Amino acid sequence: MNLFYTEKSRIQPPVLNLDNREAQHAAKVLRLREGDKIHVTDGEGRIYLCEIRSLSKNGLSAEITETELIAADKPHITVVLGLIKKRDRLEFALEKCTELGANAFIVFRGDHSEKEKVRTERLESAVLSAAKQSLRAWLPPVTVCGSLDEALENVPEMAGILMADETESPGNVNLSADVSGRSELILVIGPEGGFSERERKLLEKLNSEKVSLGSYRLRAETAAIAFTDRVRRGEF
Amino acid sequence: MNLFYTEKSRIQPPVLNLDNREAQHAAKVLRLREGDKIHVTDGEGRIYLCEIRSLSKNGLSAEITETELIAADKPHITVVLGLIKKRDRLEFALEKCTELGANAFIVFRGDHSEKEKVRTERLESAVLSAAKQSLRAWLPPVTVCGSLDEALENVPEMAGILMADETESPGNVNLSADVSGRSELILVIGPEGGFSERERKLLEKLNSEKVSLGSYRLRAETAAIAFTDRVRRGEF
Repeated sequence: MNLFYTEKSRIQPPVLNLDNREAQHAAKVLRLREGDKIHVTDGEGRIYLCEIRSLSKNGLSAEITETELIAADKPHITVVLGLIKKRDRLEFALEKCTELGANAFIVFRGDHSEKEKVRTERLESAVLSAAKQSLRAWLPPVTVCGSLDEALENVPEMAGILMADETESPGNVNLSADVSGRSELILVIGPEGGFSERERKLLEKLNSEKVSLGSYRLRAETAAIAFTDRVRRGEF
Repeated sequence: MNLFYTEKSRIQPPVLNLDNREAQHAAKVLRLREGDKIHVTDGEGRIYLCEIRSLSKNGLSAEITETELIAADKPHITVVLGLIKKRDRLEFALEKCTELGANAFIVFRGDHSEKEKVRTERLESAVLSAAKQSLRAWLPPVTVCGSLDEALENVPEMAGILMADETESPGNVNLSADVSGRSELILVIGPEGGFSERERKLLEKLNSEKVSLGSYRLRAETAAIAFTDRVRRGEF
């Protein structure tokens, strides 16, 4: 099964359209034809079963025959990740976290981050591709922030904040945080240079709970991947 | 802390040597000097605390002041992974699995694999770098095999074989395999094109147990990473 994505504005039941990138993939790579059935998501919980009406490199038009509503994941997991200097590692982290069940991303420039440019579109594109790959009807949004403060500015009061602090040895941290029943979880993973004192105090003020990811020292992107998978599996 | 690696043949207590690549890293990147203390592993469970005696771009000689023996991981986890076409994804899989606790790798050319060249040295280099990063005293060996049969030829009789089969929906597989108490586990992850019928029969004959990695469809490298982490955490 292949899952296509289209923006909400392109959906006007009983018809929807795909943009030229998605249409090209359908025509050139998958060699689909008029009359073939496809699945399309709006990235907001709907999956449309459609039949292709017209198809070229420039666009695809299809008739909706069924609409399925997919419930949002519980808990809702936001991954808050410090900038990773090597771009492919950052993209890889977001891609893998999407496959394993993250629902939103905030990438922040930490006090100790090196000054690197971030191309938000590339991150969004990695997330979109992973969401389609893993057949997810909810597309995680990607936000890039200039600081951790900004990243955590709009955290809902009911959300539980978990912080993976690799500078602490496993013995010194709470191994299990009391987050049962929280419908929204924020996972904060330190930047490559570690958190600054200022950032630590901010996290403390927000009652974030420190967790250990185990006895091996993990790279930032590995920490993000393992943290997401373990929380999605209910480990914390 | 930085962990260096050296081959056993270069260790002649009370002295050991690093090759020029490791020496260059010590001199140029870490700016270490004579008299500085370093940690060196032989990749076979020993970590040497040493003091640098001489140091240039071409080599590093150090005096061993302490030797620590690190117990091998239990269970011993071998990741048996079908070839991944995109080289960076294959390297990434081995790197992440190393950080998360894999002890050996066998990469095999599946019946459905595309004919790609594999550069074993590049895979070994990714594993070495990850093992150093995560401060592991045991260096996972990498073997490349022409078929799944060859990959599983030398599996010890006492080993438990777990097989992640993403073509099965989660409802149709054993969710938990009885592997408690096994000291050696073999995790088999299907190649990108899936297992062939022949390969499936081979795995059946070897009493491998199917496990599900959850409800989302995962890319091969994501499956390897999540599988390794979950088994190391004792999930199966």
